[in-house]
Amino acid sequence: MSNEILYVLLPDYAGHEAVYLSQAIASDDHALKAPPMYINKVVAPTMDPVRSIGGFRTIPDYSFETMPEDYAALVLIGGFGWSTDIAEQVVPLVKRAMAKGRIIGAICNAASFMARHGFLNAVSHTGNGLEQLQLWGEEHYTNAGGYVHAQAVTDRNIVTANGSATLEFAKALLLLLRNDTPERIDMYYQFNKEGFCALFPQN
Amino acid sequence: MSNEILYVLLPDYAGHEAVYLSQAIASDDHALKAPPMYINKVVAPTMDPVRSIGGFRTIPDYSFETMPEDYAALVLIGGFGWSTDIAEQVVPLVKRAMAKGRIIGAICNAASFMARHGFLNAVSHTGNGLEQLQLWGEEHYTNAGGYVHAQAVTDRNIVTANGSATLEFAKALLLLLRNDTPERIDMYYQFNKEGFCALFPQN
Repeated sequence: MSNEILYVLLPDYAGHEAVYLSQAIASDDHALKAPPMYINKVVAPTMDPVRSIGGFRTIPDYSFETMPEDYAALVLIGGFGWSTDIAEQVVPLVKRAMAKGRIIGAICNAASFMARHGFLNAVSHTGNGLEQLQLWGEEHYTNAGGYVHAQAVTDRNIVTANGSATLEFAKALLLLLRNDTPERIDMYYQFNKEGFCALFPQN
Repeated sequence: MSNEILYVLLPDYAGHEAVYLSQAIASDDHALKAPPMYINKVVAPTMDPVRSIGGFRTIPDYSFETMPEDYAALVLIGGFGWSTDIAEQVVPLVKRAMAKGRIIGAICNAASFMARHGFLNAVSHTGNGLEQLQLWGEEHYTNAGGYVHAQAVTDRNIVTANGSATLEFAKALLLLLRNDTPERIDMYYQFNKEGFCALFPQN
């Protein structure tokens, strides 16, 4: 299996939803020693730069046409693009990832997109609230009973999260990828969630 | 005064430290109506793409040579580049910003860089702990008495923060920039800090 982690970015992607996962992948203890366990790669509709909501322009490593057949995980980063026509191009990518049993992450509007295409009907999951999933999913979303009101939910190889849950999303995927020990992954989570001054009140 | 907010990114910049500020600037209530209050712009040493720790390549809007003389704020994003020679090129940029009384933000290693060059000697400030500021600052850092052990500190026009404090850093700068009402800025902070499920436990 390839060790690449593919981040799918659509125009107006939510930068905060990609940073904690990608940073941990690239800078944990293991990654600081060669060879790295995983490599982050950006996938976008074309090879043109893709702009975040905040206006940062990111250069893709792959387009939907040039992305590799194999990879370790497919991570759909939220943002405003998931309600546009361009998101339809991601449907076959997710179908292939599901057929291969690859790890899939979907956060915020990308989780709503998953609901819209019936991809959450066989797994426990979360997203930007049940109402949003039902609104986006319409008749294609038949698994309201599988909705869990939690920051992030892992069921088998699928991780979903709401848009405020970038740290919980990262933690769940890091655990699934066995990127580090559970203790070290939790330390990374706690440090960023609680903050340096809460964890170390004396200085 | 220009309404551009300049994010200074050096190689191996910490992506998580830029996202919350830039996203709020670009997508608050005001920004969704034209004309926007502020515009985010990326500044890097050259016009070559600058890579984050997580491996995302960002296209600069300006290099150190082409950046405008005037702007609303100069925001130094942390990362591994601040301990390299290239950081020396940022010294005149900070000197000019201080001379103009512009808003300056410095987070994580960028705050340590500020200490190294004596830029924190006349203001209350924070950073990655007092020991780190003293280690980086050596004899140029003479204001240990001005160190505050808080996630982020604002003194006049200078905001400093530790590397886990990206939300507090964003909040402090949004308040200083009057980007929105204090209530709405705090809502943005709380939503991302506490998370959707903590704020809205029922669904």
